Amino acid sequence: MIDQRRLPAVLEVVSLRDHASVAAAIRDMVVRGAPAIGAAAAFGLALAARESLAASPEVLYADLESAAAVLKASRPTAVNLSWAVDRVLRRAASDRGRLASSAGAVGLIREAVLDEAQAIADEDVAANRRLAEFGASLIRDGDTIIHHCNTGALATVDWGTALGVIRMAAQQGKKIHVLVGETRPRLQGSRLSAWELEQYGVPYDIIADSAAGRFLQSGEVNLVLFGADRVAANGDVVNKVGTYMLALAARDNHVPAYAAVPTSTIDHSASSGASVTIEERPAAEVLDLRVGGERIAPATATARNPGFDVTPARLVTSIITELGIILPPYATNLRRLRRDAAIRPLLQT
Amino acid sequence: MIDQRRLPAVLEVVSLRDHASVAAAIRDMVVRGAPAIGAAAAFGLALAARESLAASPEVLYADLESAAAVLKASRPTAVNLSWAVDRVLRRAASDRGRLASSAGAVGLIREAVLDEAQAIADEDVAANRRLAEFGASLIRDGDTIIHHCNTGALATVDWGTALGVIRMAAQQGKKIHVLVGETRPRLQGSRLSAWELEQYGVPYDIIADSAAGRFLQSGEVNLVLFGADRVAANGDVVNKVGTYMLALAARDNHVPAYAAVPTSTIDHSASSGASVTIEERPAAEVLDLRVGGERIAPATATARNPGFDVTPARLVTSIITELGIILPPYATNLRRLRRDAAIRPLLQT
Repeated sequence: MIDQRRLPAVLEVVSLRDHASVAAAIRDMVVRGAPAIGAAAAFGLALAARESLAASPEVLYADLESAAAVLKASRPTAVNLSWAVDRVLRRAASDRGRLASSAGAVGLIREAVLDEAQAIADEDVAANRRLAEFGASLIRDGDTIIHHCNTGALATVDWGTALGVIRMAAQQGKKIHVLVGETRPRLQGSRLSAWELEQYGVPYDIIADSAAGRFLQSGEVNLVLFGADRVAANGDVVNKVGTYMLALAARDNHVPAYAAVPTSTIDHSASSGASVTIEERPAAEVLDLRVGGERIAPATATARNPGFDVTPARLVTSIITELGIILPPYATNLRRLRRDAAIRPLLQT
Repeated sequence: MIDQRRLPAVLEVVSLRDHASVAAAIRDMVVRGAPAIGAAAAFGLALAARESLAASPEVLYADLESAAAVLKASRPTAVNLSWAVDRVLRRAASDRGRLASSAGAVGLIREAVLDEAQAIADEDVAANRRLAEFGASLIRDGDTIIHHCNTGALATVDWGTALGVIRMAAQQGKKIHVLVGETRPRLQGSRLSAWELEQYGVPYDIIADSAAGRFLQSGEVNLVLFGADRVAANGDVVNKVGTYMLALAARDNHVPAYAAVPTSTIDHSASSGASVTIEERPAAEVLDLRVGGERIAPATATARNPGFDVTPARLVTSIITELGIILPPYATNLRRLRRDAAIRPLLQT
């Protein structure tokens, strides 16, 4: 995987050879972005299957279960992580039952686990491209878009979610301009989204996160786009800290705010954003900042650093997924999406 | 004056010996904070009076007028700057009339100009202390307060406005905790307010500006406090970029948001925030940021950097001044404040 911590200065690809290294890479944000974390964890489980010395399907499954626990504990907020791990584990469990008495069952389960991880990765790319096509229909030629954090190819397996929508619109020939929220404290905007937009040839300016309100006030912004680490059953969007204030400012200025998420990000078991654990990250991410070589904060300063916030569903104009654009009321429409995929894509209205 | 750009690493006092140096110091933010800028500009005019080789009151006044233009052009947003310069200039004009035929009139006007600058400085300190006492009445023991930018002794001649309110509450023995918004891009919060709070012994944590919404959502914040560079006649608050989004998040969570300003910050000639020029500052302030030695943004990145935003009066719970706490409707109450000082201090209700 690309070591995202070193971008944009250095494009370095690191190789991970066991599930513990994958868990550490997720925890330390070598890889970040909810869909990317999900796929990484799935491949982490495939590595665990290869690491296992098990001679029976039962022992292999037990090894996978303990690796799954390690992988799930690496980041608490993104639902894709546990979703992907559980999906791979289910495949292993089903094959274990089916193959219990076969010769070579252990090897076949190892293959199946890798196959399932690859399927998750492939589906993510396909889902993102479909999502991007739906989302691009909301962007007009000449639009100025505020984007928060990084939701591009780096945050997914490929293509991206919210940034993938922007990429698709640009590829369709629409002239757009992106205001990239720098996304303190880890600066995924100025570090990663700016770098990606340069690769795609999309013009942008970096802005301080707190300047978004000023640009929304000025009338020059047409839409706001962000991803999500988790969408609750009621449509609350748990995403990178700052999304909530951005969505508030969009609403206050009658600018639409869209969440772009693959349906794997929807957590039907979370009734609202309030039931999602918000990760508090190290204070050093806020404090260890230098301008002109000097550390900014006093040496004895302390900081608090919530990684995410909850954007209430009422502030989200619609949710762009690979199955279509979900409109409010989300509690009803997300339930319907789950039950029978009878959603209402804006494209068809 | 203290070179605020070097804090908190170095406490350096620089001496300025002519009005052009003062204008440059204001432009380059050696000194910042609306009241501090006002007093600095007033002393800049006193330096101009000393620099002038004029032999007549008329020539001296013409020299003062051209120095006033240079000083006023150094920063466009803070009203205190032109307010202070105009006040000193009026004093010079009045003395020029009175002393026109006196021997030694030029010397007397020079003295009067310095005297007026000193009066502005002294009045600022006295006003801030009164303002702080009114404001401290709104803070209860145990409160957690979000503060934006720097509004302390550094931003004023002494004592401070919004941070002065916090300082006063702490001095009254109230146990309070401050969440200091780091205030991108120039980081006046983590650089200056954190440093000041350490001097006053007030416990604090630095937060990313965009994390304020999360803390307001969590229910642990009791009030939000900020200063202003200009308050329009309708109560719109023009202040450091980010104030608007902070006030929006406070309102969305039913947390009061107070602007603490000396009445010299009220611009009765600006009917609303829309008529105030918002300074766009250099892109380098956003882009020149290093974490762990490496510049964050791509080398070719561009940025936009509005220095201020407008917090609509509807989001401001009340305006704390040295004459009392002004409640809405601001259009009426600020006009009344100006006309007959018949305001309604919350202390007396």
